[in-house]
Amino acid sequence: MKLNRRERIAVDMDNVIADLDLHCINWYFQKYKKYVKKSDLYIRSELKKEVLDFLFTPGFFLDIPVMPGAHKALVELSQRYDIFIVSAAMEFPQSLSEKYAWMMKNFSFISWKNLVFCGNKSIIEADYIIDDYPKNLDSFNGKGILFSAAHNLTLYTYLRVNNWNDVITLFNKEKWT
Amino acid sequence: MKLNRRERIAVDMDNVIADLDLHCINWYFQKYKKYVKKSDLYIRSELKKEVLDFLFTPGFFLDIPVMPGAHKALVELSQRYDIFIVSAAMEFPQSLSEKYAWMMKNFSFISWKNLVFCGNKSIIEADYIIDDYPKNLDSFNGKGILFSAAHNLTLYTYLRVNNWNDVITLFNKEKWT
Repeated sequence: MKLNRRERIAVDMDNVIADLDLHCINWYFQKYKKYVKKSDLYIRSELKKEVLDFLFTPGFFLDIPVMPGAHKALVELSQRYDIFIVSAAMEFPQSLSEKYAWMMKNFSFISWKNLVFCGNKSIIEADYIIDDYPKNLDSFNGKGILFSAAHNLTLYTYLRVNNWNDVITLFNKEKWT
Repeated sequence: MKLNRRERIAVDMDNVIADLDLHCINWYFQKYKKYVKKSDLYIRSELKKEVLDFLFTPGFFLDIPVMPGAHKALVELSQRYDIFIVSAAMEFPQSLSEKYAWMMKNFSFISWKNLVFCGNKSIIEADYIIDDYPKNLDSFNGKGILFSAAHNLTLYTYLRVNNWNDVITLFNKEKWT
């Protein structure tokens, strides 16, 4: 089967097509009237706890902003590749139906058949993965692409993209490894 | 990574570890005071529609009976294999949180990290799959095992198990293909 199919890209949700960090910053500003930088979300432990509480709040995932450029890029890539959206959603079980609804609202051109909610992405069979967590690239059998996020900026051993324009440029190259 | 890991079995939920058909029969009996055979669930189209309506009812997935022998067999197999529960849950989005809760209640020894809800099982990277739908075996790169269900009894080209005792017998054989 594998040989007869189009190449597949597994695409993460949080901080890749959904701007989770911006959503947290907006929420923090509304709650505490204080602006927090993306990098501070992952450094100041007291804030991390607050952010985690926010992640478990019902409704949290419903209105995360779409990552700039993600929609246009996935429309373009879906002409040549099978796109699967793969989210480690099991850690936040209340998020399952919200993430499904978010996808239907913001990426309705991607079928529910191409959605995967899992606890561990090593179970994914695809050719490429675009993800902000190195562990998901490390356990992947295909080509891993690290999507820049505040928490991964000091890692230098991965093929990195900073935004969705970079992703399109990468997939438009004739050869890349 | 693949070479360093234990072998993996992807196990379907509905009609494999969860006795979906029995649940539908019990519901039909309660509603219409009439007993329906498992085979009739898939033949009489008017019943199929009713069953489908039932599948979309909130709460439906919460109290499906566990398939006889499934719990004991998975405890045993999990000593030697990594068990992933893989359900095509996206077809029934309201089922996502219910299926998660059902797993935590009935198979709490299986971590949420080993749960996968997807729309299309061809995305699964594992060594074995136990499933009642031939399409999920056809698109799988590893060894497929057809778990007998009323709707698949006339298919003869698959490696078949009739129950969880058969699964244990199969995995205890030294060699099988």
